[in-house]
Amino acid sequence: MSDQKYVYFFGKNKTEGNAGMRNLLGGKGSHLAEMANLGIPVPPGFTITTEVCTAYYNHQQHYPDGFEEQLADQLKKLEDETGFKFGNNSKPLLLSVRSGARISMPGMMDTVLNLGLNDKTVLELAEEADERFAYDCYRRFINMFGDVVLNIEHKEFETILDAKKAELNVTNDTELDTQALKDVVEKYKTLVKEKTGEDFPEDPIDQLRKSINAVFDSWNTKRAITYRKINHIPDDWGTAVNVQVMVYGNMGENSGTGVAFTRNPSTGERTFYGEYLMNAQGEDVVAGIRTPHPIETLKQEMPEVYDQLDDIKERLEHHFKEMEDVEFTIQQGKLYMLQTRTGKRTAAAAVKIAVDMFNEGLITREEALLKVEPEQLDQLLHPMIDPNEKVRSIAKGLPASPGAAVGKVVFTAEHAEEMFQAGDKVILVRNETSPEDIGGMHVSQGILTVRGGMTSHAAVVARGMGKCCVAGCGAIQIDEDNKLFRVNGHTLNEGDFITLNGSTGEVIVGEVKLITPDINSKMETLLEWADDVRILAVRTNADTPEDSQTARDFGAEGIGLCRTEHMFFGEDRIPIVQEMILTETIEGRKEALKKLLPMQRGDFKEIFKVMKGYPVTIRLLDPPLHEFLPKHDELLEEYIELKASGDSNKLNEVQVLMRRVESLHEFNPMLGHRGCRLGITYPEIYEMQVRAIFEAACELAKDGYDIVPEVMIPLVGHVNEFKVTRESAEAVARQVMDEQGVELNYMIGTMIELPRAAITADEIAVSAEFFSFGTNDLTQTTFGLSRDDAGKFLPYYVEHGILENDPFVAIDQQGVGQLIKIGVEKGRSTRPELKVGICGEHGGEPSSVIFCHNAGLDYVSCSPFRVPIARLAAAHAVLKENE
Amino acid sequence: MSDQKYVYFFGKNKTEGNAGMRNLLGGKGSHLAEMANLGIPVPPGFTITTEVCTAYYNHQQHYPDGFEEQLADQLKKLEDETGFKFGNNSKPLLLSVRSGARISMPGMMDTVLNLGLNDKTVLELAEEADERFAYDCYRRFINMFGDVVLNIEHKEFETILDAKKAELNVTNDTELDTQALKDVVEKYKTLVKEKTGEDFPEDPIDQLRKSINAVFDSWNTKRAITYRKINHIPDDWGTAVNVQVMVYGNMGENSGTGVAFTRNPSTGERTFYGEYLMNAQGEDVVAGIRTPHPIETLKQEMPEVYDQLDDIKERLEHHFKEMEDVEFTIQQGKLYMLQTRTGKRTAAAAVKIAVDMFNEGLITREEALLKVEPEQLDQLLHPMIDPNEKVRSIAKGLPASPGAAVGKVVFTAEHAEEMFQAGDKVILVRNETSPEDIGGMHVSQGILTVRGGMTSHAAVVARGMGKCCVAGCGAIQIDEDNKLFRVNGHTLNEGDFITLNGSTGEVIVGEVKLITPDINSKMETLLEWADDVRILAVRTNADTPEDSQTARDFGAEGIGLCRTEHMFFGEDRIPIVQEMILTETIEGRKEALKKLLPMQRGDFKEIFKVMKGYPVTIRLLDPPLHEFLPKHDELLEEYIELKASGDSNKLNEVQVLMRRVESLHEFNPMLGHRGCRLGITYPEIYEMQVRAIFEAACELAKDGYDIVPEVMIPLVGHVNEFKVTRESAEAVARQVMDEQGVELNYMIGTMIELPRAAITADEIAVSAEFFSFGTNDLTQTTFGLSRDDAGKFLPYYVEHGILENDPFVAIDQQGVGQLIKIGVEKGRSTRPELKVGICGEHGGEPSSVIFCHNAGLDYVSCSPFRVPIARLAAAHAVLKENE
Repeated sequence: MSDQKYVYFFGKNKTEGNAGMRNLLGGKGSHLAEMANLGIPVPPGFTITTEVCTAYYNHQQHYPDGFEEQLADQLKKLEDETGFKFGNNSKPLLLSVRSGARISMPGMMDTVLNLGLNDKTVLELAEEADERFAYDCYRRFINMFGDVVLNIEHKEFETILDAKKAELNVTNDTELDTQALKDVVEKYKTLVKEKTGEDFPEDPIDQLRKSINAVFDSWNTKRAITYRKINHIPDDWGTAVNVQVMVYGNMGENSGTGVAFTRNPSTGERTFYGEYLMNAQGEDVVAGIRTPHPIETLKQEMPEVYDQLDDIKERLEHHFKEMEDVEFTIQQGKLYMLQTRTGKRTAAAAVKIAVDMFNEGLITREEALLKVEPEQLDQLLHPMIDPNEKVRSIAKGLPASPGAAVGKVVFTAEHAEEMFQAGDKVILVRNETSPEDIGGMHVSQGILTVRGGMTSHAAVVARGMGKCCVAGCGAIQIDEDNKLFRVNGHTLNEGDFITLNGSTGEVIVGEVKLITPDINSKMETLLEWADDVRILAVRTNADTPEDSQTARDFGAEGIGLCRTEHMFFGEDRIPIVQEMILTETIEGRKEALKKLLPMQRGDFKEIFKVMKGYPVTIRLLDPPLHEFLPKHDELLEEYIELKASGDSNKLNEVQVLMRRVESLHEFNPMLGHRGCRLGITYPEIYEMQVRAIFEAACELAKDGYDIVPEVMIPLVGHVNEFKVTRESAEAVARQVMDEQGVELNYMIGTMIELPRAAITADEIAVSAEFFSFGTNDLTQTTFGLSRDDAGKFLPYYVEHGILENDPFVAIDQQGVGQLIKIGVEKGRSTRPELKVGICGEHGGEPSSVIFCHNAGLDYVSCSPFRVPIARLAAAHAVLKENE
Repeated sequence: MSDQKYVYFFGKNKTEGNAGMRNLLGGKGSHLAEMANLGIPVPPGFTITTEVCTAYYNHQQHYPDGFEEQLADQLKKLEDETGFKFGNNSKPLLLSVRSGARISMPGMMDTVLNLGLNDKTVLELAEEADERFAYDCYRRFINMFGDVVLNIEHKEFETILDAKKAELNVTNDTELDTQALKDVVEKYKTLVKEKTGEDFPEDPIDQLRKSINAVFDSWNTKRAITYRKINHIPDDWGTAVNVQVMVYGNMGENSGTGVAFTRNPSTGERTFYGEYLMNAQGEDVVAGIRTPHPIETLKQEMPEVYDQLDDIKERLEHHFKEMEDVEFTIQQGKLYMLQTRTGKRTAAAAVKIAVDMFNEGLITREEALLKVEPEQLDQLLHPMIDPNEKVRSIAKGLPASPGAAVGKVVFTAEHAEEMFQAGDKVILVRNETSPEDIGGMHVSQGILTVRGGMTSHAAVVARGMGKCCVAGCGAIQIDEDNKLFRVNGHTLNEGDFITLNGSTGEVIVGEVKLITPDINSKMETLLEWADDVRILAVRTNADTPEDSQTARDFGAEGIGLCRTEHMFFGEDRIPIVQEMILTETIEGRKEALKKLLPMQRGDFKEIFKVMKGYPVTIRLLDPPLHEFLPKHDELLEEYIELKASGDSNKLNEVQVLMRRVESLHEFNPMLGHRGCRLGITYPEIYEMQVRAIFEAACELAKDGYDIVPEVMIPLVGHVNEFKVTRESAEAVARQVMDEQGVELNYMIGTMIELPRAAITADEIAVSAEFFSFGTNDLTQTTFGLSRDDAGKFLPYYVEHGILENDPFVAIDQQGVGQLIKIGVEKGRSTRPELKVGICGEHGGEPSSVIFCHNAGLDYVSCSPFRVPIARLAAAHAVLKENE
């Protein structure tokens, strides 16, 4: 290790690092070096590498051999370049010590400024600059060092300062005079002595070493560890430490400090955007005592400095091919750049900047595509809370479906519909939703549930509708009898306004102002570029003509999952569906199904029309029959009441219904009598559905439509289940085509949503023409995890890093992903031309889309509002593969 | 195809087949050939191969080229050997045509006897033998041919015969004289003409061809297909057809017919065992009009024939090294053997014969082991219904736990305990059982449930207790209010006696006589031989000292699964467990757990003592907490009643309980908050359990016991779950050992019961010292199949051949088995010495045990009463592998 380089210098005369060394020097350090290389003025300094941090942790908080020598050498170089002396009483060299990881972890780690001050050097500084300024720096240094290095709570220093202000009857720090500051310094030093049992360290080298240690130590504070877990930053990356000569923006009226973006980070407009304060330090800008000026006024105030800054801005953009976020300080008329990094931006800005930069010839289309994170597009598709509004949430649930919504609280789907018809905007608040609530959900602005996770019924349906949803907000207690809910000390009655933020999970009291971003042509341009690049097709999950149209508008190339059960819940249909279920005989069921047939046929015709020219995959009935009946608890209550009232006719009716509900009761409906298991034991149901599909397709074919129906059999675990169902479907298809005198091309395939199906995909693919991975259920069965029940431990798992991600949000690539790969490989081993897609919620999640591309899938299918995201993610998949 | 041999001759002078050609000639045909080869007298004939059957089906019911010529040649040979002529008016050759598949399918396929008779040959036969005899044969032939070949229902012939008997006022066929039989023949022929539109075929060749076709066709009757599905006989095996010269046991007092076993098939004793009737045909023996004589009396009656038969018996046993089941006919003093096959026998006989044959030097130990099917041993371990009792069942459920039981009907576990204490024998009848019923189950003779499958709670627990159980008897309607149940028109009240047959699933009214087979020393001898041969270790699933002792007595080599939750259900414990669950604070839970600690420690000490010197794997708490609380429905009823009565204190109590039950409610408890998910979110529970385990082990270690506890973490899906739980367990173990001043060897491992665990077994094995495949849950998740809910479709699947087996009974080797293999392979890839076992119900099922051996597992663990079966199956695994 001894000839390894641990410390990299940057400055006017010599710079050892560059922007490509981000892993070694951290983001801040590598960019400071890069600016120095470009001849842009930065206060000189050096960067201690992340490897030192790693070594420090691997060797019981000791530096590696040779480090101390390199540190001394670099300090010497710094003295040579600046002409100041570290630890010297005359012309003392003062330093800043800052962390800088590979990826910015804002506010997570520690900084020490004004290092090098002590009782002697403070006098020198006073002489060079100004006495009050010198003592102000000194008290700030002791405070910061005491807090960061010596672990004395900041508020202890704060108390001393406040006491001094009270004593002098002033309110602002700036009103303290030199003597006051000198007093404070003395008191601070006494505090340090009391707390640590030692004097405040006067030796600058000692100060430096302890500060470097403190920065390293801050890598492993609880909050930093948590932050890394949340953001998936490996623990062994470590942080670099940047040691830099101090510059001061508060050295009089020709000094100042500011921050700026090279373009407008909200809109993406190509204007220099930022603010500054003269005679101020960075923290003063943040403190908000004085109002900073917009960057344009600097043009008048200090034209030369402005021109220099504007020039640097242009050079940085051209050099980094990015919108940059810079910090600068002007010390007595001289400009220093303190930092440059990629600027954070809104989704709208990201899209505009990407497209503009291509148009300006700055970047290629491919680079433009990579400048926008697919997930960001979501912001552009939903109403959102005006960023200028100050809101305080009263509870937090899961951000189950993005966007924001304002409306009056209502507790039942029926009442929601009534209020909607009366012209009210409503928010449906339920313990959990069920398919019976669809109507009420449809008319609501947003949905709030107490139970259920990111893929609960409420969440899935809301996302499909593009409607805001906060799910699993467990703190809420609904009291339906009194039409109110309680949460964290608040009580909200039916009719009270609340606002939901489905992107954060926040619940807010009252009406908050919302804004709707306009989907501009830039996004369309970008998505067209994405379409040119991507290989994966993007379909949608939709069961209504409306959703299908929305998805088409967003660029969906067909339907990957049309769930037929949602159609069964229509107001005109549910009684017939219940009639079918309650009938004990096959003839009775067939009678009821005959009534449903024209309705289903109508559904399919409308959807086929909207999807003209595109494939439509229709999944046959999937949920267990009891989902279509009332809940047992409700019936029991009704029963007990009726028993008391003595209405024997009605009682009998309820009893019959209850008995059927009991006989259909399942301990684990997710693993129960559903999917093709229903289709096999009640073949008449699937026969009706297949007939409806083919009658619809034949009728349209006569009108000149070219329809290729794709019939999808759900929940196949064994090839024989598929064979039996396929044979029956084929027979019906043949019959309908003969009746109608039409020949159709069609496909019959299956969902792969059980581990057994993936493992035996080779057998299944012999008979199945396509696979669609149902990754919601596949995740549930592979993990043995009910998405509806996972709320009790899954958040804990993600929070504590037991799982990296919620596997219902992003595909679990190590586990579920392996099964997908096995399924694709085995399936294509017996049917090389097998068409393979995915229709779980993951189909619209960027990392999962990339996984699907890499696994060789043909398409992803997602809810309409995720289609643009999937299109961009699919392009990223290709571009990242090429990288 | 044309030079392929389709027909094989057997007879005195020339025999073309032998016993090794079972696949080609079927069981009956190959053994007839073998007997002919041995010089044993069989009526000559020929066998048409199974390949002809297969070809017949592959070519739209046509024979392959060349077959007709071979058939004609063989008929000629038969005529030459016998001196009779087929279709000739003088000395007519009469034939039997019988099916004969590779494996006997008793009663499934068709037979035609007396073939060759027509209006002319019947006269010849009359002349040769006796007129009445000839017409009796003729009417039998027309009836059989009409039924089997022409598809005229047997009862149509029966009606004619009955009318004739009525006309003549006689009751038995034998009382009909020649003229009556002639009339019947005429009426039969008229019936055939009416039904088929054609005359009864007079041409013997035509008769033969049609009969062969009919036998082939009978291979594909619905009942034959169903039989094959149930018995896993491939459809493409086909059947052979045996065409043989007729012999008659009814040609006077020196003729006769009989069946015999070479040893006693009930007891296995080495005595010639059988019965015969003189002047009779086979069907007369079955009809039971005359009582057959025991075979010994033949010694007096026809000493020469008896000696010949006894000699043949000895030769067959020596030749086949098997106990044989033979059929013979004596025609006018001459003995013919019609069939020999392996004799069916009781379990007791199988064991005795196997051990005896080794002692007689007839077979090796290995051959002896293979003579007993492991599953048969089950019969020897439970009481059974006396085979001499005539019983009629009133309902049938699933044969969930073998054996038989007699007792009084009782509907609640509490009442069962009361009645038991009052000295009654009881049968607990429940819709389903839950862990709260354990006490009641324990005191019951047997358990009968309405819902649930082979692996429902009732079934699993009953098997563990070695107690008879009939589960999922859906026809039963329990009326708890009136303390009765109704089933198929019967009403049974509490206190009425019923008898259960857990081996067949039958429910019988009243007290039936039971017998208890004595487990003789022969079985122990056999199992000791099995122990010498097997490689797999056999452990048991047991949670009580009693079960552990039973298992030890049956030869278990340790505990593979000790479920700790069963201990939580004890009467003294459940209130404390509920207290723990109802407490909202961690401190409260710890208080409650502190009370449970000494109880759990005591449990473990007792079990460790019984298992002295053997490993004990203890699984930490697995089920979701709501299993320990009352059911919501019950609380709701109580709540509504209390609300009406106005007892507000009690109401409040119930409300609190209800709220907790609601908050713990799960949609899919199987996939919910259980296993290590509980252990991670409520670490104090596992900490208490680990403490109890180590305190117990340390205390015994001080008394000189050598205990190596194996702590098993349930429901691990991700390696991190295991790591977190392991760390916590290790910390407690360390602490206890320090406190006690004892160092123990111990292991920490995991269940592999989720597909994700199997797929990521390489990661998990880095930290886990052993795996135990929990194949119950692994089957549930791999198939996406809840064992408690599968009753609605799984029986249908098995019946219709969609699944070969109930995957909860025998491991699904194509699906679940692949995951097990992946798990073993991946696990050993990172930890070569990984100990791997199985502790699902499959651990005691022979085909699964053989699978486990082949998959390289170290041990199987099963319920105590399955231990002997597993020991023998494990030996079979080795012997079959060597084959």
